[in-house]
Amino acid sequence: MKLVTFSPGSASPRVGTVDLGMVRDVSGVLPANAGMLEVVEGWAEAAPLLAAAGADLPAYPLADVRVHAPIPEPRRNIFCVGKNYREHVVEFGRSGYDQPDRSEAMPTYPVVFSKATTSVTGPFDDIEPHAAVSAELDYEAELAVIVGRGGRGISRERAFEHVWGYTIINDVTARDLQRAHKQWLIGKSLDTHAPMGPFAVTADEITDVTALRVESRVNGDLRQSASVKDLIFDIPELIATLSAGITLLPGDIIATGTPAGVGIGFAPPRFLVSGDVVETSITGLGAQRNRIA
Amino acid sequence: MKLVTFSPGSASPRVGTVDLGMVRDVSGVLPANAGMLEVVEGWAEAAPLLAAAGADLPAYPLADVRVHAPIPEPRRNIFCVGKNYREHVVEFGRSGYDQPDRSEAMPTYPVVFSKATTSVTGPFDDIEPHAAVSAELDYEAELAVIVGRGGRGISRERAFEHVWGYTIINDVTARDLQRAHKQWLIGKSLDTHAPMGPFAVTADEITDVTALRVESRVNGDLRQSASVKDLIFDIPELIATLSAGITLLPGDIIATGTPAGVGIGFAPPRFLVSGDVVETSITGLGAQRNRIA
Repeated sequence: MKLVTFSPGSASPRVGTVDLGMVRDVSGVLPANAGMLEVVEGWAEAAPLLAAAGADLPAYPLADVRVHAPIPEPRRNIFCVGKNYREHVVEFGRSGYDQPDRSEAMPTYPVVFSKATTSVTGPFDDIEPHAAVSAELDYEAELAVIVGRGGRGISRERAFEHVWGYTIINDVTARDLQRAHKQWLIGKSLDTHAPMGPFAVTADEITDVTALRVESRVNGDLRQSASVKDLIFDIPELIATLSAGITLLPGDIIATGTPAGVGIGFAPPRFLVSGDVVETSITGLGAQRNRIA
Repeated sequence: MKLVTFSPGSASPRVGTVDLGMVRDVSGVLPANAGMLEVVEGWAEAAPLLAAAGADLPAYPLADVRVHAPIPEPRRNIFCVGKNYREHVVEFGRSGYDQPDRSEAMPTYPVVFSKATTSVTGPFDDIEPHAAVSAELDYEAELAVIVGRGGRGISRERAFEHVWGYTIINDVTARDLQRAHKQWLIGKSLDTHAPMGPFAVTADEITDVTALRVESRVNGDLRQSASVKDLIFDIPELIATLSAGITLLPGDIIATGTPAGVGIGFAPPRFLVSGDVVETSITGLGAQRNRIA
């Protein structure tokens, strides 16, 4: 199933299902005020309601509605993985933006940081450049996992039982702040620096997640293109590592890392400037398109 | 005002006010199901209700109730500041647990990371050692700021207008995981590794926050003792830096950093082991006491 958080016209955000270019407003069959987080958390109850939701519910052409991030207000920070594609580790190391020593070496353990909840924005919304605090804006297309059933001590073998679905996140980064503050939270968390969506796609729609292709384009120019199978730490490993000591919660979001081709991978770096348009796409998950304001 | 989240007997957690060793259950004068987050967010309305709450409300000796973390489920990860007391920067640098190069140098910008919401536990609850993933458990007593009015672009001069109050956090750290994963989220976020409380104390109770003394003891032995005036980046600076590009929300928690005297400051390091008792205290904010399970 392909779900979306959307607004028809100027109405408040609601959950919809997407099929053949149409969005069906399913809020009428869900508990009052249930957003995507409640749908994910109560999926056992919600799934049959959504599957049965029929032609009597209002529907709109997808092109005519405002699409929000599928989870506009996550219940806590987004878990993010750095340095998780080999060629990106090398380009990041060479760039001088990582800690200087041995930074081209592959990580031995997953590098995990977070993006603040307020960085989330819609898949077609403008990205604020935050020119007052950063002059080095960069893009990072990433596959994001949405956790369904929570838990601790989840094994590699059972990890996919805890994956509700997938979406796209552009892990927009203020490189100068990422470097200056050493730990990455501030450089990764500026408002609007986590475009998410357009869809939340349930795991059963994805036959083989490792076959998905993660791409980004800047002003139409292909910058990143890699397969999820190239992840250094794959999805089961990330879930096992995180949940070894941290209880994962329904609705938790794990951005799995970005492939090579980001702005600092070029010499000189190609930072984003006002007016640039960044597109991020993943097979089967749709595409985002965000303009730098 | 000194507030607490508590349970009388086995009852569900509720908000109370504390005076002279007694807790008054004020849930009856608050909106239904309002927890500390709702009290902080709606402080303009809640404050007069709490101030007027009288002898007709149930009260219990503080010693007879279970005290929870004042905000048991923060709305997002706790913002935490690393390397924010000079002598601690030096001890951390010498320990070899930071990135190796120039790590004894004072930070030029605040080092900000986060602790996952699920790391929060009560001020007298046991700390899980997580022996399956860590053998290097350490303590860090810290003053934590609770944000009242949210906002972005908050100036140093107006920063204290956004401080609702204060509490204590023990920023418990799995040093081996902190080092192995490079970014600190995992090493800082294991379940029960953020004892918080016992009280949430409103800012008006604290005449001069820089005069507060932050202390920790392990099995009665004084380990940390420093004044908040020794912060490298003070509270107004932290609020201005964070809010420059990140919208702060009511109820956000900022742990301001730990002074010298942590376990890795000793040679050899003194890690916590099962049965150890860690006490953390701050002038006017009470004291926590947590046993390593």
